Amino acid sequence: MKDIGVGILGFGTVGAGVADLLLRGNGLLASRTGVRPVLRAVADIDLDRDRGVAVDRALLTRDAAAVVDDPRVQVVVELIGGTRIARELTLRALALGKPVVTANKALLAHHGPEIFAAARATGAGVYFEASVAGGIPIIRALRQGLVANRVDRLYGILNGTCNYILTRMEEENAPFDDVLRAAQAAGYAEADPSLDVDGHDTAHKAAILATLACGRPVPLESVRVGGIRQVSNLDLEYARELGYRVKLLAVVHAGEGCADVTVGPCLVPLDRLMGQVRDVFNAVLVKGDAVGDTFYHGRGAGRYPTASAIVGDIADAALRLASGAPHDDAYAGAPAAPRAAAADPERWYLRLTLTDRPGMLGRAADILGRHGISIASVVQREGAAGPHVPVLFLTHRAVPSAMDAALKDMAAMDGAGAAPVCFRIEDLNGKE
Amino acid sequence: MKDIGVGILGFGTVGAGVADLLLRGNGLLASRTGVRPVLRAVADIDLDRDRGVAVDRALLTRDAAAVVDDPRVQVVVELIGGTRIARELTLRALALGKPVVTANKALLAHHGPEIFAAARATGAGVYFEASVAGGIPIIRALRQGLVANRVDRLYGILNGTCNYILTRMEEENAPFDDVLRAAQAAGYAEADPSLDVDGHDTAHKAAILATLACGRPVPLESVRVGGIRQVSNLDLEYARELGYRVKLLAVVHAGEGCADVTVGPCLVPLDRLMGQVRDVFNAVLVKGDAVGDTFYHGRGAGRYPTASAIVGDIADAALRLASGAPHDDAYAGAPAAPRAAAADPERWYLRLTLTDRPGMLGRAADILGRHGISIASVVQREGAAGPHVPVLFLTHRAVPSAMDAALKDMAAMDGAGAAPVCFRIEDLNGKE
Repeated sequence: MKDIGVGILGFGTVGAGVADLLLRGNGLLASRTGVRPVLRAVADIDLDRDRGVAVDRALLTRDAAAVVDDPRVQVVVELIGGTRIARELTLRALALGKPVVTANKALLAHHGPEIFAAARATGAGVYFEASVAGGIPIIRALRQGLVANRVDRLYGILNGTCNYILTRMEEENAPFDDVLRAAQAAGYAEADPSLDVDGHDTAHKAAILATLACGRPVPLESVRVGGIRQVSNLDLEYARELGYRVKLLAVVHAGEGCADVTVGPCLVPLDRLMGQVRDVFNAVLVKGDAVGDTFYHGRGAGRYPTASAIVGDIADAALRLASGAPHDDAYAGAPAAPRAAAADPERWYLRLTLTDRPGMLGRAADILGRHGISIASVVQREGAAGPHVPVLFLTHRAVPSAMDAALKDMAAMDGAGAAPVCFRIEDLNGKE
Repeated sequence: MKDIGVGILGFGTVGAGVADLLLRGNGLLASRTGVRPVLRAVADIDLDRDRGVAVDRALLTRDAAAVVDDPRVQVVVELIGGTRIARELTLRALALGKPVVTANKALLAHHGPEIFAAARATGAGVYFEASVAGGIPIIRALRQGLVANRVDRLYGILNGTCNYILTRMEEENAPFDDVLRAAQAAGYAEADPSLDVDGHDTAHKAAILATLACGRPVPLESVRVGGIRQVSNLDLEYARELGYRVKLLAVVHAGEGCADVTVGPCLVPLDRLMGQVRDVFNAVLVKGDAVGDTFYHGRGAGRYPTASAIVGDIADAALRLASGAPHDDAYAGAPAAPRAAAADPERWYLRLTLTDRPGMLGRAADILGRHGISIASVVQREGAAGPHVPVLFLTHRAVPSAMDAALKDMAAMDGAGAAPVCFRIEDLNGKE
């Protein structure tokens, strides 16, 4: 039985969970792997707050760099968050040849190539199972279990806060703003919710998954990002009547060395598993050319689900250190080429708010026609009060660029009310 | 780039899929892992049948032992099936220190301890991702991704044939025998369907998953096994009205070094993902103490889904051979103790067929009462024709031994028609 020293940077919610699992789970982990990860040090600015975990005070320090440098620390767990100090300390550990385990999706999405290059230079590994979808072992699935597959499509519900808000909006018929405030009060959403509700957190995770799916670094800048602020209760209701739910979905279309990644609200069929993902849960659907569809579902955040992924990575790193096996190399090479979006026509859900006067619907339909977008169905209901009425179009397949152009024309149309709302309809069938 | 030689024993459906993926997927696999698995030989009795795969005839041989012994073959893929020749050749390869990749659940369930001991003796590994749930990487998830967890409960739909039959029975309101015959004609069920429909195949897989969940070998003999022959359309209909679907479910209750494993038809809630698993798909729900619920879904059989898992294992074995890293050791130690079934009271669905005369329902209810089983609800409908009527009881929680005793009394009851049908109700909530 070999001991492998572990140092944790950041004693927040997840850091405390990792410390707890290491302290009480040692026997189990050790019996399963033959290697015992031993907690050597925990660094944080605040050493006094009670985290509900019995960590020996002698292990606590404010000096994170000293933890990285400590020769008894062989695996460094980065849980500081952000991209500045976390980047410095990660690079410092990797330069020393120490594997880094991280849950920091922003760090990887912004600085992945630099960090993976630093790991390669010294043969240290970067382990990031916890950076996407919490405790669901999706990174391992993509890197190892599905390695024989070309991944054509990948779909993910990757942000628990957004999924919680959409679920509450639907179940309580409450508007976005009210649900967001309640979620903030309950601790399910940050005081500044932008990272979550505007889709950026999902984009970070989508870039990581896309990198694994296509085998080349996918630059964050190439991800088209939308959030859920514009989703109204009316949309949820219409979607439901049509047999769909609105989800903030990451969609990866992968090809040979290229990828097209979008994040935005999508209509997902109610009768597919992805349409059944509720509350704070995350899910990923992977379409591989050999395996077909595989689907993964679990908690995407929280102290112990995230700590489960971190400790799984620590065990993996520790096993390799103990046996002298190399760490997995991360994906290298030139960045993935952006895939021509025009190649993938989609169906669209389009809700317009039009002045209630003759000819408006016809004009909107004309605009779609001018851009070559064919209408599958139209819904305009009687009885809406006020000067504006909602009009719903479902379209046949049309390329995003055509829809973008049509939306521009519609916004400029005389008699248009609020900006048009346009979501993709994802049948999740991809090429299969 | 290192080449690692692969030999395939058994050129059937899956063997042809593996050969195909190795021949056309080499570039992808190699670029992802830095190691190239190269097909060196394929052994089968029948060398002439066209498998639709362009394998060089020079690689084909009838001599499986020679493939195992061939020094250019470093990884042996066992796809012969059965437990006699497959066992001999597997032990032969392991004795030579060659890792074996297998999809053979019967072999592992019957001879696991012997095979894992042989692997340990020479440091060769046994890779068996394909033995359970086809292309879903559930073995990796349990061994690595969730290694930090104590697994309390595990539920699985592990036999595609049974799930296909139950789905068709429900959707077409057709009886078991008719659907089975149609499934046999369509190639979804074997000419001798017993291994599938009587639950034995599921039991093999359940024993493997239980072994990983509790960290000790779980003897196949300790698994209580039932099949789906007794499931009627009436049961599917009743279940549906009550908010459930009937599924052939493997249920693992794991504890410290012990496990209780049952396979049988269960009522699963319609509004849970497990209740949505249709047709030939497989699914596994794992309840870990840190991660909570994680759920995995995909195709459990078929040429390419199974080959996907096999080639993932080949890549793993090849990487370790190339880097000199040890193979994962399988679980050793004393067999898991059977967990006292009495410790886990369950809710039950009980359908009786009673002679249509006064007092029968009361007598059945009395029997339940005498065994301490409390009734939650009773359904007896008007209008059933014939001398017998179906009566449905849903019970509160009761231990299996009490229900077994009550069933015995009911079968012996004067005026009983067909044997009582009794299924567990699984709310899938376990300890959470």
